[in-house]
Amino acid sequence: MKATTIHAARDIRFEEVPDARVEQPTDAVVRVTTACICGSDLWPYRGENPIKAGSTIGHECIGVVEEVGSSVSQVRVGDFVVVPFDHCDNTCAHCRAGMQSACVDLSITQSGQGELARVGHADGSLVRVDGVLGDGRPDPALVPSLMALSDVMPTGWHAAVSAGVAEGGTAVVVGDGAVGLCGVLAASMMGAEKVVVMSRHESRQRIARDFGATHVVATRGEEGEAEVMEITGGVGADAVLECVGTDQAMRTAFTVARPGSTVGFVGVPHGVELPIRRMFSHNVGLAGGMAPVRRYLPELLDHVLAGRIDPGLVFDLTLPMDQVAEGYAAMDERRATKVLLQP
Amino acid sequence: MKATTIHAARDIRFEEVPDARVEQPTDAVVRVTTACICGSDLWPYRGENPIKAGSTIGHECIGVVEEVGSSVSQVRVGDFVVVPFDHCDNTCAHCRAGMQSACVDLSITQSGQGELARVGHADGSLVRVDGVLGDGRPDPALVPSLMALSDVMPTGWHAAVSAGVAEGGTAVVVGDGAVGLCGVLAASMMGAEKVVVMSRHESRQRIARDFGATHVVATRGEEGEAEVMEITGGVGADAVLECVGTDQAMRTAFTVARPGSTVGFVGVPHGVELPIRRMFSHNVGLAGGMAPVRRYLPELLDHVLAGRIDPGLVFDLTLPMDQVAEGYAAMDERRATKVLLQP
Repeated sequence: MKATTIHAARDIRFEEVPDARVEQPTDAVVRVTTACICGSDLWPYRGENPIKAGSTIGHECIGVVEEVGSSVSQVRVGDFVVVPFDHCDNTCAHCRAGMQSACVDLSITQSGQGELARVGHADGSLVRVDGVLGDGRPDPALVPSLMALSDVMPTGWHAAVSAGVAEGGTAVVVGDGAVGLCGVLAASMMGAEKVVVMSRHESRQRIARDFGATHVVATRGEEGEAEVMEITGGVGADAVLECVGTDQAMRTAFTVARPGSTVGFVGVPHGVELPIRRMFSHNVGLAGGMAPVRRYLPELLDHVLAGRIDPGLVFDLTLPMDQVAEGYAAMDERRATKVLLQP
Repeated sequence: MKATTIHAARDIRFEEVPDARVEQPTDAVVRVTTACICGSDLWPYRGENPIKAGSTIGHECIGVVEEVGSSVSQVRVGDFVVVPFDHCDNTCAHCRAGMQSACVDLSITQSGQGELARVGHADGSLVRVDGVLGDGRPDPALVPSLMALSDVMPTGWHAAVSAGVAEGGTAVVVGDGAVGLCGVLAASMMGAEKVVVMSRHESRQRIARDFGATHVVATRGEEGEAEVMEITGGVGADAVLECVGTDQAMRTAFTVARPGSTVGFVGVPHGVELPIRRMFSHNVGLAGGMAPVRRYLPELLDHVLAGRIDPGLVFDLTLPMDQVAEGYAAMDERRATKVLLQP
């Protein structure tokens, strides 16, 4: 099969690799009908993470079940499914507690930007999309939003849940990447009265407003923090969603959080030093991490199918999968917020 | 007046200083009838914090109102009061949100181990002890538990609240100092089914059991962590109370916390590097900080007066206040868990 591989920083290829196949009786293989590029894929792309030359990259996809292992009973060949990037058995103690991203037998999609992807614990992981299918495929208009359910939308949702967004409060979203935008959508859905997004890019500001942002702060650092504090009447935000993963973003998040509130973080932290003295003196907590996608998937799928949310708006560039390298470059250079890939 | 001062590491004196007096119309001055030494006083005592030679030290006391400022209306001269170590107006946005330790006009008791202590925002801070008084003083048997309400018991309570201790769950308390012991008491009062205390000292283990600990882990580091994991069936604790403030204690706390749980921390952090990658991958949060004593005081006072809790058991050495230096030495050398001082 063909799949996306990374050979070095900024060296992305779409090339022949061994077929994904059922390895465990609980596995399934999904034929990818749509894939996309994650902000976190840019860390190795930029050389910030170690790279094993020639390894596949990409963990977000949706598609049709191509093959199932002997013990898989909840999905069948031909089912159209959303693939959570983090696969879980959905039965262990951590999964039952809603923390599927810490499943005792966790695995991650390895060739999501390819023709086929292996999914561990298919019964626990995959969520079938029913009722909107013609010829086994969903309405093309729904595809981007279904694609967003594999990672980005549940991740933004997790930031809001972790930050404890509540009805009537003020939520601040640090970061206007696709995850941050989905965080805006989540905070808005959860009833926050003020949803402040920190964003310098006009196109992203537009999406943020579509997603329910009531305030846009276009400045950064101390200036941006002062602006947010003013919006919150000097008190600070009731909930802060940190959707970047850098030290500056984290510092801003803690600076604008009101005492007693929580920073929900979902950006893979890179070079972050937590301001523990401030956390202590201001009683600002930190919660979050890798999103338990499977936990939120059924609810979010309902929202998408009912037309209550349209997270697919985060995709502003669609490319054929064999042009995936251009997709990475476009996201790296901020010419695109998030790139959809079609085989 | 006489008060406790610190001149250098391990140089504690009880000596003449300027009288505490009403400086703002919202102040009160309290004649200290009982004081005590806080674990956090040991940081400067051991030279771990900067010391301003000759400054007063000590922030925990109870006593009788000696003088009030012109705008004080909720307490009167002669009232017997518990003095929260952190003074708050109890009306600002942070106070109203239950985060009195972040009051916009926060102050801290400065001469609690002295004859007189100034209290800022007396109306917002002080809590009168009614109904158990003969000649204006409480029953001597109640004094240690009332004394514990100034800081140590609300701080242990705050650890449990911050960690999200819930009925039926497992709570692990890292640290068997007086705060940790009060954390055990809090977790037990909140209905945790298993309350695990990590303690190597027999006398403290006894108090912990009196406070409701169901399990004692006497080992530390990896060995202790393994023991706790076994108690929790390999899953990890539903709530972890970090009551020390060192890097080792924090590491242990995060290691034994189940994915999706929260470490509640109340030990002033010293040299702590938070394991952010683990926090992210395991979705273990951190919450807590300086305790909003005034928030918990009325409820905890009720518990003490009704005989439901006896946090005064943490005091295992009582000294006259002029022997305060010996009190510090006893706590530093772990000959005492917590020292009560009587003028």
